[in-house]
Amino acid sequence: MNQKIRIGLVGYGNIGRGVELAINQFPDMEGIAVFTRRNPAEVNSVLPAIKIDDILNYKNDIDVLILCGGSATDLPQQGPELAKHFSTIDSYDNHAKIPAYFEDMDNSAKEGQNVSIISVGWDPGLFSINRALFEAVLPVGQTYTFWGKGLSQGHSDAIRRITGVKKGVQYTVPLDQALEKVRKGLNPSLSTREKHIRICYVVSDEGADQSKIEQTIKTMPNYFEPYETVVHFIDEEQFEKDHQQMPHGGFVIRTGESGAGSKQKAEFQLDLESNPEFTSSVLVAYVRAAVKFKKEGKTGAFSVLDVPMSYLSDKSPEQLRKELL
Amino acid sequence: MNQKIRIGLVGYGNIGRGVELAINQFPDMEGIAVFTRRNPAEVNSVLPAIKIDDILNYKNDIDVLILCGGSATDLPQQGPELAKHFSTIDSYDNHAKIPAYFEDMDNSAKEGQNVSIISVGWDPGLFSINRALFEAVLPVGQTYTFWGKGLSQGHSDAIRRITGVKKGVQYTVPLDQALEKVRKGLNPSLSTREKHIRICYVVSDEGADQSKIEQTIKTMPNYFEPYETVVHFIDEEQFEKDHQQMPHGGFVIRTGESGAGSKQKAEFQLDLESNPEFTSSVLVAYVRAAVKFKKEGKTGAFSVLDVPMSYLSDKSPEQLRKELL
Repeated sequence: MNQKIRIGLVGYGNIGRGVELAINQFPDMEGIAVFTRRNPAEVNSVLPAIKIDDILNYKNDIDVLILCGGSATDLPQQGPELAKHFSTIDSYDNHAKIPAYFEDMDNSAKEGQNVSIISVGWDPGLFSINRALFEAVLPVGQTYTFWGKGLSQGHSDAIRRITGVKKGVQYTVPLDQALEKVRKGLNPSLSTREKHIRICYVVSDEGADQSKIEQTIKTMPNYFEPYETVVHFIDEEQFEKDHQQMPHGGFVIRTGESGAGSKQKAEFQLDLESNPEFTSSVLVAYVRAAVKFKKEGKTGAFSVLDVPMSYLSDKSPEQLRKELL
Repeated sequence: MNQKIRIGLVGYGNIGRGVELAINQFPDMEGIAVFTRRNPAEVNSVLPAIKIDDILNYKNDIDVLILCGGSATDLPQQGPELAKHFSTIDSYDNHAKIPAYFEDMDNSAKEGQNVSIISVGWDPGLFSINRALFEAVLPVGQTYTFWGKGLSQGHSDAIRRITGVKKGVQYTVPLDQALEKVRKGLNPSLSTREKHIRICYVVSDEGADQSKIEQTIKTMPNYFEPYETVVHFIDEEQFEKDHQQMPHGGFVIRTGESGAGSKQKAEFQLDLESNPEFTSSVLVAYVRAAVKFKKEGKTGAFSVLDVPMSYLSDKSPEQLRKELL
């Protein structure tokens, strides 16, 4: 029997918790430990929690580290340090800074003769794969990305700061008429705000002026004023029942014309009840690719665009051709 | 300036014509010639038409051959012969026989130190990529593939090879109630025949035995036997009026549950005005992968599951990361 792939987690927020759960769904993987900057005694993980300062003692016990930190400050610092000592997977998602982050990770991973797969998840990630695929196979055309229905943490916080609001969430939802134009192949020019609508669910304090709350939301500069915004008032029971998760998703659509002018459309959709759980599951799948790349003697940084689908599976190439091709 | 990739076409049916047109949309490619079993003077291609018997004289003029023949009889014979002498791309689509075809192509391509990418197109092809991706990132779940509504080139070819058939087309139509059940995440158990119906329109030769033709179609293994199949005999005038377009498309849907039980859905869709033109465009895109594999010293047969997205693009890895990741 083959040894399982031994995974270490760095960080234990939403993604760390998601990865710990996801590993149970991958029969060829096992979680070894969670490495944390916090006091390990205060981390409520199932896996052993260990101080990040001791991580180098685990070099022989871990095949791949999944870096579960955020892109703003955690990954730019931790990533290049850890890639010198471990193969890594991360979900770095600051699109504008990906080229610089890639360079840093590539240098570190090559120095340590490791493999680092960066920006794994769904956008960047599965959406990127389909954007690249669509552009390659339909060279004359236009690609659109829509996000949502998805929960926006910053906008939900902004709603909750308004006087008279007890609880509130905000979802970003693609606008039907924009989606329709794109799907019809009309190739519209659309800014982000022309593609999306903001829908808010609010529980107001007893006796609060709901019309005033709605007006405050809709006229809030930057956050809501530039967008079409819809506000629904609901009771607390409904809120607890329907708005406790972190759903997200979206669409990548390319319309184009092939050689003799025929219209062709390709579309990729995700509809996720839990954004962090899905991202975590994608991260774990890419562990297999890191292990296979390393076995082949590859070193350095890679993105999802460099990984063939067969490298994500625990099935043999023969089995994949037979069952999935 | 880099030399363009030089492409030879084998066969000049719908796919051959589509490939000849598609090459114009790929600035890094050029078509060299069409190789044909027919009298070249009777082939109305834009590219020079050349007798297939002379193809070995062109070994130094061609980087990759695109095999544009059908899966029923052309490819199983031509493919392994030509792979000994050229790198090849084909759209072999007889799912049940892919493993055997892969072995034949792998042996020939290795013997000739060439690269053969088989079963390129959209199913097998883009659908296979997404089936493999979905299964890898959502290991607990179920994947469904629906085809149509559209004309199936492979199945229409199969009908036209039957003795007594003058003209014939086959439309695959997904059943709405099955699609709905799947999208709702109900995980229905659906046999292929519960998901689709196959509708055939046939013009028979004068004096042909129509009931024998119908029986031959309905009992054809792999192609028709597993499905509910309806055969309509129509006259030639009606055929020319109603059945000249070759639309197709379909859906790959996976619904599953991630670590903590959240429901997740991924869906891939194609809506194609011209199936052969789209397939042709995909074939041309994979030429780039064959060239890159060969440069890396790889030999043998590969499928779309072995090809990273970055190998399909003429953009540099840096540009891809910046623009599409």
